[in-house]
Amino acid sequence: MERGPLPRAAAAACGPHFAGAARALLLAAVLSAAAAAFLPVTESSCPRDNSLVKDISQMHQSSYGREGFSHITVAGALAHGMKEVEVWLQTFGPGKRTPIHRHSCEEVFVVLKGKGTLLLGSSSLKYPGEPQEIPIFQNSTFSVPVNDPHQVWNSDEHEDLQVLVTISRPPVKIFVYDDWSMPHTAARLKFPYYWDEDCLPAPKDEL
Amino acid sequence: MERGPLPRAAAAACGPHFAGAARALLLAAVLSAAAAAFLPVTESSCPRDNSLVKDISQMHQSSYGREGFSHITVAGALAHGMKEVEVWLQTFGPGKRTPIHRHSCEEVFVVLKGKGTLLLGSSSLKYPGEPQEIPIFQNSTFSVPVNDPHQVWNSDEHEDLQVLVTISRPPVKIFVYDDWSMPHTAARLKFPYYWDEDCLPAPKDEL
Repeated sequence: MERGPLPRAAAAACGPHFAGAARALLLAAVLSAAAAAFLPVTESSCPRDNSLVKDISQMHQSSYGREGFSHITVAGALAHGMKEVEVWLQTFGPGKRTPIHRHSCEEVFVVLKGKGTLLLGSSSLKYPGEPQEIPIFQNSTFSVPVNDPHQVWNSDEHEDLQVLVTISRPPVKIFVYDDWSMPHTAARLKFPYYWDEDCLPAPKDEL
Repeated sequence: MERGPLPRAAAAACGPHFAGAARALLLAAVLSAAAAAFLPVTESSCPRDNSLVKDISQMHQSSYGREGFSHITVAGALAHGMKEVEVWLQTFGPGKRTPIHRHSCEEVFVVLKGKGTLLLGSSSLKYPGEPQEIPIFQNSTFSVPVNDPHQVWNSDEHEDLQVLVTISRPPVKIFVYDDWSMPHTAARLKFPYYWDEDCLPAPKDEL
């Protein structure tokens, strides 16, 4: 997968929040304060970074377990304190696609590189049904109708597809479908979504 | 000003809303309905376009009277029915800058080309004061703190600066300052902002 403006190295921007001695100190503090109102944050790859101007190529990126996929939270609710909008940079290798999914937030795509297909199902039937297939291409934009089940697919065999994505009302609440004939009511809520998982407090050390 | 992904021709995407016979019919309808609750829309260059996938290079762009500046509403409230987010593509020729301004919405920039300077004043003094000067560069991102007076400046002498901008809660309500020592209370609300002016109903034919 070609990398264009993607990070050269992700590790530097993303370290554990509490390591070694600091972590031991934190745990000791928690142990000594039985009524402590906060929970310790476990090791996390949440790309928290409060610098005002960030080099996107140095920001944390991950495939989140999806081969041929890369996601960077350029401006995020949990990572950067955004309250109303969130911006992502995503790259799909040839043939790769998002899950079939829907969400009630607004979503705007700008295609920075490559081409592909937007698959768009119906929200007015009981299930998405046979999706429309709409070509997307470099320097195109599209906004996904609220609650419409959809899938972004790099239908090209050679080139990466790179998109800049804006969503409203973060963090995103995504309902995932197994296929286009799955009833809307059966779609499963995946929350927090993969890239938000590491940024939520994970009270695994809870007493 | 070099044009990269900017429009080759803007006129095609943007025509009058009611022309000739259609306009006459509309006016007749208004005349015959004394209690009509709507006002006729005058000729407009609002880039309304309901196609799902749009070629950004074909979208309406304008300088809105600012030399060396270009704005495209990639996804807009008034033009495209967005309710929660809006996306703009803006290009600043060498030396060009935004007004000094503030707004209470969130705003995320992604620098697609060129470099420049983010000037950032204070919202905690009575006036913005001497601004911080923060370098911005290709493939960087920054989000402007809500209500902080700021200015984006293409401080380069040769290259264009091109940014993709996301705002929340459109259409944008912008307060403009004459300079960094103008009190916050004296900043002037410019609403609708230039690119929204053409998209609001303009009741010039009101009876």
